[in-house]
Amino acid sequence: MKRRDVLVGAAVGAGAVACSKPQEVAVATSTPAADPIEWKMVTTWPPNFPGLGTGASGLAERIGQMSGGRLTVKVYGAGELVPALEVFDAVSTGTAQMGHGGAYYWKGKAEASQFFSAVPFGFNAQEMNAWLYHGGGVELWRELYAPFNLVPFPGGNSGVQMGGWFNREINSVADLQGLKMRIPGLGGEVLTRVGGASVNIPGGELFTAMQQGTIDATEWVGPYNDLAFGLYRVAKYCYYPGWHEPGTTLEAIVNKAALEALPADLQAIVDAACRATNEDMLAEFTAQNQIALTTLIEKHNVQLRPFPDDVLRALKKASAEVLAEIAERDPFSRRVYESFSSFRDRVSAWHEVSERAFYAARSLDP
Amino acid sequence: MKRRDVLVGAAVGAGAVACSKPQEVAVATSTPAADPIEWKMVTTWPPNFPGLGTGASGLAERIGQMSGGRLTVKVYGAGELVPALEVFDAVSTGTAQMGHGGAYYWKGKAEASQFFSAVPFGFNAQEMNAWLYHGGGVELWRELYAPFNLVPFPGGNSGVQMGGWFNREINSVADLQGLKMRIPGLGGEVLTRVGGASVNIPGGELFTAMQQGTIDATEWVGPYNDLAFGLYRVAKYCYYPGWHEPGTTLEAIVNKAALEALPADLQAIVDAACRATNEDMLAEFTAQNQIALTTLIEKHNVQLRPFPDDVLRALKKASAEVLAEIAERDPFSRRVYESFSSFRDRVSAWHEVSERAFYAARSLDP
Repeated sequence: MKRRDVLVGAAVGAGAVACSKPQEVAVATSTPAADPIEWKMVTTWPPNFPGLGTGASGLAERIGQMSGGRLTVKVYGAGELVPALEVFDAVSTGTAQMGHGGAYYWKGKAEASQFFSAVPFGFNAQEMNAWLYHGGGVELWRELYAPFNLVPFPGGNSGVQMGGWFNREINSVADLQGLKMRIPGLGGEVLTRVGGASVNIPGGELFTAMQQGTIDATEWVGPYNDLAFGLYRVAKYCYYPGWHEPGTTLEAIVNKAALEALPADLQAIVDAACRATNEDMLAEFTAQNQIALTTLIEKHNVQLRPFPDDVLRALKKASAEVLAEIAERDPFSRRVYESFSSFRDRVSAWHEVSERAFYAARSLDP
Repeated sequence: MKRRDVLVGAAVGAGAVACSKPQEVAVATSTPAADPIEWKMVTTWPPNFPGLGTGASGLAERIGQMSGGRLTVKVYGAGELVPALEVFDAVSTGTAQMGHGGAYYWKGKAEASQFFSAVPFGFNAQEMNAWLYHGGGVELWRELYAPFNLVPFPGGNSGVQMGGWFNREINSVADLQGLKMRIPGLGGEVLTRVGGASVNIPGGELFTAMQQGTIDATEWVGPYNDLAFGLYRVAKYCYYPGWHEPGTTLEAIVNKAALEALPADLQAIVDAACRATNEDMLAEFTAQNQIALTTLIEKHNVQLRPFPDDVLRALKKASAEVLAEIAERDPFSRRVYESFSSFRDRVSAWHEVSERAFYAARSLDP
């Protein structure tokens, strides 16, 4: 079949058995070769970057398998088709049909986007999924992206990240004064507010920047990715927890016109493939982080340190101020902030007596 | 198409475009009418029981949508086609092609099955998914079920459950002596070991049993389901956390021959539909539990109480003994136990400095 014939078949839609559709069979008998629908997926990750890039590749693979090859998705790493930070525009304009990245990269387009990736002292992965799927989050996110001709899907989660790698001890808020730390996004705004100096440099330059003393500290992702970058070789202290990114959601974005042109079954396949990827990435990070943490501690003698409570309190207070100010200046952010805040209040109360209390019970000394 | 023809199509396999297979097209042109493949799904839940039964229904719906109706799944509540506890056998023998329930119901068939649902002081939902998908869990589970002609998939998760509803205070291990509590499975074995008397009665009889004093305590699921059952009206105290079921995985089981008869695209659809359901059920429970907890506390004045640490220590010690004894007497359980234990040691260490430390940071007083 030629491409045109597949599209005829694709138009059959939900509920029908594609192979039995009379006109398609007629086409198929006259032109037996078949071309699938081909999409491009541009990503903000280096090709097959562990966890994030491999998640994007897995998503594309799932769509191809479930559609029996009727919809294939070719994945492009950052810079292969468009630079990382042009993914949003490329999918918006239809240069690519699909993209994979993080919503907080697009705060210059829509400030509220940050709530759909990671909020300091916000949601962990389980809470984020609950808010997105069953708390009105996805609906708000889709409304936010609609003017850009984009439909967003949750497309992965890192889990709680690490607090970062430091070349000086953090014993009090005073130790944050003037600290030059690579920490982008909302976390960076919060650090600046308590006296630090946040900078944003690409992941590939972190090792050298730490080694040369250009920066005093850096966060990256978690043990899995941080081990691969060798950050333990250029920093003395590794702090926890990752207050700034407690469960970062990655996003799959689809060009609205391209999505709506699909028959209902392929639309459902795209949706489920994103959900499967959203879950699988968290499972992969959880499994790989625990292996990497063991390696960091046992092989590389990394000393893990908790941020002091006073430091966390100051960061928490500053985070609340930063969020409130965003809600103050941007009307859409206010709506998202209100949904986020009321959900956080209630889910925090529930997880205090369930998830957190279980962790405490399991860790009791005999 | 007749069913036989669909099965011919099924033989096309992965990567091929089913519609272009010459012999299938020939069949289709001679018999243009199409019958979809129709599966039956038997479940251990009352029809559309909140969270669990609705999860099973959502799974069936996803398969129908993604397959464009080529594979439809009709859901039967417990007792509609077979009784709840005959689901395993019904799918094993092919009376139904698919089932939805919990693996711990089948410990009489295969004792190791309990590790794939809930283990006291074991994994929460995120850890369970990490172990199952990226720690070798699913592979062991499939090996365990293979002699029964069954392929299991993770098909939902309740999150951490509640510790239960009690008519007496639990201030020490002494208060557990002779306590008649509805708590099935491994949790029940553990309670018995510390001096309690575990009983198993169906969910529908819990309210009356508590009201009449036939039992002193009962666990059920969590705020969402417990509120619906009105358990706050027949018990004075609600304890946390649910040490006995910290993240119960529900299972979707598929008849092996039925699954293998599907073409590769439909097999991939079944897999992704299960994964989407696995994630969605946890998100639904998380969102609903926090709403229900607020109702229980603010409207019904339920007093939540933590189990004392000494009680949790005794239960934890007894749990370790119960698990070790299962591993001792059953060779397959030993293999699962060893995989489970080493994963738990490492993931606990990681989650102490990530998930748990984040909960602690978020809950700090200003």
